[in-house]
Amino acid sequence: MSKKIAVILSGCGVFDGSEIYESVITLLCLDRAGAEAQCFAPNIQQMHVINHLTGEVAEGESRQVLVEAARLARGEIKDLADAKAEEFDAVIIPGGFGAAKNLCDFAVKGSDLSLNEDLARFVQAVHQADKPVGLMCIAPAMVGKLFGEGVHFTIGNDQETASAIESTGGVHEPCPVNNICIDGTNNVVTTPAYMLASSISEAASGIEKLVAEVLAKTEG
Amino acid sequence: MSKKIAVILSGCGVFDGSEIYESVITLLCLDRAGAEAQCFAPNIQQMHVINHLTGEVAEGESRQVLVEAARLARGEIKDLADAKAEEFDAVIIPGGFGAAKNLCDFAVKGSDLSLNEDLARFVQAVHQADKPVGLMCIAPAMVGKLFGEGVHFTIGNDQETASAIESTGGVHEPCPVNNICIDGTNNVVTTPAYMLASSISEAASGIEKLVAEVLAKTEG
Repeated sequence: MSKKIAVILSGCGVFDGSEIYESVITLLCLDRAGAEAQCFAPNIQQMHVINHLTGEVAEGESRQVLVEAARLARGEIKDLADAKAEEFDAVIIPGGFGAAKNLCDFAVKGSDLSLNEDLARFVQAVHQADKPVGLMCIAPAMVGKLFGEGVHFTIGNDQETASAIESTGGVHEPCPVNNICIDGTNNVVTTPAYMLASSISEAASGIEKLVAEVLAKTEG
Repeated sequence: MSKKIAVILSGCGVFDGSEIYESVITLLCLDRAGAEAQCFAPNIQQMHVINHLTGEVAEGESRQVLVEAARLARGEIKDLADAKAEEFDAVIIPGGFGAAKNLCDFAVKGSDLSLNEDLARFVQAVHQADKPVGLMCIAPAMVGKLFGEGVHFTIGNDQETASAIESTGGVHEPCPVNNICIDGTNNVVTTPAYMLASSISEAASGIEKLVAEVLAKTEG
């Protein structure tokens, strides 16, 4: 039986949603490994819409996270509210600002962040069932709130961001873009991806290792 | 010196823009091969906006092709009007309905299609300079209008679509998803991608060959 992996998206585009390259490379790695991916996203409004050509906020525009994330999944996506931990062997959360704006509010609140309720319920249930969780780029900002004290994680080498996350409970480990941070005790795997990547193949080098390690951990 | 490849996008999302997986896999293959990709898109309004969750037209919404394509390129994109054939070694055009809705109007006009003027000017200049052009998925719908009579191409095995394109000048060759159609005389390479793919790794199998062949042809 192929492994079933939930991939949680947060929109479609690095500045206000899921980082597209990280998400696609994750799905490609999972498919090549024979795993079955199911995308989810919260059915909420995006924090805002960024014009990705100018980098400016698109005033007056509003978009729904689930609807935009559906672009990244060719329409094959479900409401995160309907995700059931018992149906999946693992969870992977790609990065992009959407992870810090729509899945939680780290982008505006820093260490005072709170988590989207559907995300917390689902990912914590997966974690409590001793199934692995992989997070990349800025998504590890949520590890303290998700998993409590002492979870080892990486967001690369940005000390200010790392410290903000550590103050919520995690323990940061510097890590290069082509590698992963494995917390074997807590079954959590992280990689810097576009926190450090200067090219798509650099991002892919770490993401491939993350997906392989998450799948390896599903074997128990 | 690394090869410079222009990648022409048509939005961001399979139903009204560029097919995201095809575009990202193209960029990943180019980067891994040491080539330098530059994304372009026309600075025009999308034909329409499709809600990718429901598949329905999002009434009242309008989006710009260049602005949405910028999501797929992490902001690193230029107006197709500014693309200069002499600066590039090859062109690749991913698919998605955007190729048939925004780069041309094949999706509504069939064999009576007309091409976006910036697209025609740039791609025809590249072609006339004997540089290779790669097209995937439905993008080969443009080969007759772009290159005239006798260009061999594939869009997989959909005979009705193939016939409509053939009536504009091309010669269709059936091709499986994991392979490519090479017109050595005209320097045109095509692959079915999501015209046939039932998974992202299937799409990748043909796209990898297309990118490799386009790059091989830049060696003369």
